[in-house]
Amino acid sequence: MNNFEIDERLKNDCHLLGRVASCHLLLMNNSLVPWFILVPETEQTEWYRLEDEVQASVTDAVNWLSEYINATYQPDKINVASIGNIVKQLHIHVIGRFETDYCWPGVVWGAEAKKPYSAGQVQVIKSALVDSLQALFTPAE
Amino acid sequence: MNNFEIDERLKNDCHLLGRVASCHLLLMNNSLVPWFILVPETEQTEWYRLEDEVQASVTDAVNWLSEYINATYQPDKINVASIGNIVKQLHIHVIGRFETDYCWPGVVWGAEAKKPYSAGQVQVIKSALVDSLQALFTPAE
Repeated sequence: MNNFEIDERLKNDCHLLGRVASCHLLLMNNSLVPWFILVPETEQTEWYRLEDEVQASVTDAVNWLSEYINATYQPDKINVASIGNIVKQLHIHVIGRFETDYCWPGVVWGAEAKKPYSAGQVQVIKSALVDSLQALFTPAE
Repeated sequence: MNNFEIDERLKNDCHLLGRVASCHLLLMNNSLVPWFILVPETEQTEWYRLEDEVQASVTDAVNWLSEYINATYQPDKINVASIGNIVKQLHIHVIGRFETDYCWPGVVWGAEAKKPYSAGQVQVIKSALVDSLQALFTPAE
């Protein structure tokens, strides 16, 4: 899909890190929790409507990213969700959660607190993804 | 896993409907939205840690249940999530959401409003699942 564009709202809320499997990988601009978002290049807005091979590829990306979050941040729980009530473009949240974080045990959606990343912090995360995921991750320019 | 028991908190909050693929199918006791929960028989608490064949089977259940929710309730969006911050036992929420529902466009987790089902309503839902999913669904006693 050559004309695929990431939704403007996701672009405004996140840093674009690169690609994992068939998905764009975004970082929610909130350093209070490690909150990543996968965006497959599809016009479908519902998870169950993805073609089998796309669903399998997105599942791979969720698995690799979850492993990465677990190894890097050692969270108490990983939250995975496809919601899309506000931004319709299909996107999957993969979030490391801690019993000490700002909205535990509640969910992050709708919780107001936010602490943006510095440019340097984003670069560190991108480099860590390159080191850990290696060929599975293609960093954005 | 012969000794598998559904978590007490899920049992208290939900009606047990039956089984879809390798999962127990629960209905959250809140008739304000069609809110189903799939519980695979596993000790793992994280989605990405499921063995490949279990993950594939749970994915089938999510797909079939989403199709069912879409056909039966015609929601504006389906929300799918594995959270588990409070109940650790792995469970996947599959929820039909409406632009007119009680907490749209917010998420259902943490929203307080609730309207329990009558026993008759639960039976109607169970019968509808039998009719629609046929061999894919095994109703509970």
